Amino acid sequence: MERFLEEAVAASSKLLELSSAKKTAILLEMAEALREKSAEILEANRADMLLAKESNLSAALVDRLYLDEARIESMAVAVEQIAALKEPVGRVLDGWINENDLKIEKVSIPIGVVGIIYESRPNVTSDTAALCFKSSNVCILKGGKEAEHSNVAIAKVLQSVLKQNSLPTALISLISDPSRAGVAKLIKMDQYVDLIIPRGGAGLIEFVSKNATVSVIKHDKGLCHTYIDADADIEKALNIAINAKTQRPGVCNAMETLLVDEKIAADIMQEIMDRFTKLQTELKGCEKTVVLIDIPKANEADFNTEYLANILNIAVVDGVDGAIEHIRRYGSGHSEAIITENITTAQKFLNLIDAAALYLNASTRFTDGGAFGFGAEVGISTNKLHARGPMGIEGLTTYKYIVYGSGQTR
Amino acid sequence: MERFLEEAVAASSKLLELSSAKKTAILLEMAEALREKSAEILEANRADMLLAKESNLSAALVDRLYLDEARIESMAVAVEQIAALKEPVGRVLDGWINENDLKIEKVSIPIGVVGIIYESRPNVTSDTAALCFKSSNVCILKGGKEAEHSNVAIAKVLQSVLKQNSLPTALISLISDPSRAGVAKLIKMDQYVDLIIPRGGAGLIEFVSKNATVSVIKHDKGLCHTYIDADADIEKALNIAINAKTQRPGVCNAMETLLVDEKIAADIMQEIMDRFTKLQTELKGCEKTVVLIDIPKANEADFNTEYLANILNIAVVDGVDGAIEHIRRYGSGHSEAIITENITTAQKFLNLIDAAALYLNASTRFTDGGAFGFGAEVGISTNKLHARGPMGIEGLTTYKYIVYGSGQTR
Repeated sequence: MERFLEEAVAASSKLLELSSAKKTAILLEMAEALREKSAEILEANRADMLLAKESNLSAALVDRLYLDEARIESMAVAVEQIAALKEPVGRVLDGWINENDLKIEKVSIPIGVVGIIYESRPNVTSDTAALCFKSSNVCILKGGKEAEHSNVAIAKVLQSVLKQNSLPTALISLISDPSRAGVAKLIKMDQYVDLIIPRGGAGLIEFVSKNATVSVIKHDKGLCHTYIDADADIEKALNIAINAKTQRPGVCNAMETLLVDEKIAADIMQEIMDRFTKLQTELKGCEKTVVLIDIPKANEADFNTEYLANILNIAVVDGVDGAIEHIRRYGSGHSEAIITENITTAQKFLNLIDAAALYLNASTRFTDGGAFGFGAEVGISTNKLHARGPMGIEGLTTYKYIVYGSGQTR
Repeated sequence: MERFLEEAVAASSKLLELSSAKKTAILLEMAEALREKSAEILEANRADMLLAKESNLSAALVDRLYLDEARIESMAVAVEQIAALKEPVGRVLDGWINENDLKIEKVSIPIGVVGIIYESRPNVTSDTAALCFKSSNVCILKGGKEAEHSNVAIAKVLQSVLKQNSLPTALISLISDPSRAGVAKLIKMDQYVDLIIPRGGAGLIEFVSKNATVSVIKHDKGLCHTYIDADADIEKALNIAINAKTQRPGVCNAMETLLVDEKIAADIMQEIMDRFTKLQTELKGCEKTVVLIDIPKANEADFNTEYLANILNIAVVDGVDGAIEHIRRYGSGHSEAIITENITTAQKFLNLIDAAALYLNASTRFTDGGAFGFGAEVGISTNKLHARGPMGIEGLTTYKYIVYGSGQTR
């Protein structure tokens, strides 16, 4: 692996010499190449599908794995959208003159070599490669074993465009050992790799976080809450709560627990139950909730669970302070919402809770690069440092200071 | 340690409720308390000094450890300067309206609980505690064993001001076990601690980097270069090179290796030798250098050494490309300078080298929070992510998104 990574590091300097226009042109060529060579990709995908059926992969996993002409067209379009993003490297983020008359500029630069560990969906291969190329980073891709044939085929198509442009194929590298041992080695290669982004199940994230010596940006779970305050517009509150839970329950920005202000709990609990029950939501309630409506009791483990399913905990809390206390105890720092018309209550909630995204009178489902307007997203970071929450292509850059002098000494 | 850290986390929410004016007032009280209780601090320091003499600590270490009224006054002034900094929390870093008419704001917030591991100088205790308090972070301080009495006395003074203001003393916590075992435990407490900043020797930094599960911002070595290009103003070049090496050789932004363009090496090498020899600099040269002047040969290990002393390697390189190649091989990504009057050469160097700070026609010695105009500095980060290079108080903040809606759902 060392030699392979040495090549990646050596290749990374080539990227710094490419003009922005050239990078864009190459990405458009890559999109075209995906279309032209779709037959090869589909053939490789059929091999993965066959193995998936043999090993009885779940229907959901098989669907994620599956490619057809339409899905390859989407991949090509995604690469074109990334090509069209504003150049992320070389932005002047700040600049000033110091007391020695030095002109100091803070400028965005690529991170260097980025390892991305992901599962199932083959489109992540082309998306991530394109995002890294656009931001002048070398990517080391470690896809899921079940998608190996598809990933190799997609990477080959992208690498063929690199070759046509006299660039090293190491700029888009695919790790050949897609086992946990391969991951274990990669995440300790801090002399070569600058950042690891694990996207996948809790087990993978935990393993990478605990063992990496390379910096990690996690894409971990979201245990999100919505708090309905006594001063809420109840119709607004119910719409938002229903959207946050049921519009797409399997994603990290969906709500897991609804918090209801004690002052209005008795008045609105039946309506909450009726509305969710119509949508087949399985409800569990805290001690105070189960007195008001006839649903099973939620225990400590329930309040700590990211269901990723149409199941909802309901808890009655003592106003905004009770909501803050509950969220501090159970929240995962992803997305939290308050529904209220009272500005002082809203300020308290928005100031005192620490999470990547806080919402006033809106659904937590908006925590997403697309909804935030980032154009393309690397993912949703649950890190507290460097990149937090929806992570656009800027998250794949860091900065350096360039200091312009005229002979200054200290 | 777990209970101790639980208290720290619990205390952290108190800081979010303090107004900016209140934080400033408390910091000014702390500065006053340091002056008023200087006798107690000096008495504790005498105990450390006594132990230092018994254990034959080096003169340099003893000097770092030593406190007197003047040094305590400096500590108090430093706290006042930190009190006067612009409020680092609640800055709106970015803001926009998305296509759903949500108003999205990116706002600076404290990191949370910050562990700082440092050595010798007792003033780091008050500096760091003040920086963390100003940025609404809880600090967990782990000072050097040799400064334990002094650090405890200083922390007690600061904590007494917290108590007078009905705040938990856990906001400024000092770890009682200043051994490596204490460090080993602290850096794995990722459920309580958000960031570890190690400041100290290479052994400590290496140990923390390899073993921490908490995020780390390193303050590691600087192996800095200055490249004199054929198109340099030679007088400017010599002044800058001499300043970079000799003004304060023991610091991380001092130059270790001087790179000289082959085209002018024969013309200027004797002058370089004469100027440095006058300042007692010990010189070592590459193969090509030792042909031109009579100095010992530098080996591979020399080019990899941060001397922290008045010793300099000289290497002849093949123009700016040779300089870039040398720096990519030996540089530590700290500070690198080019001396040239040619704009195309300068652009190449400044674009293609990856380091925290790059200088055109100025000394690398300016890589420092004070020189950059940051007012107070946490240190000089050698991390690539989150904070890079001189790290002002903003480096102790992260951000969250606050999203203002009016009932939006997806």
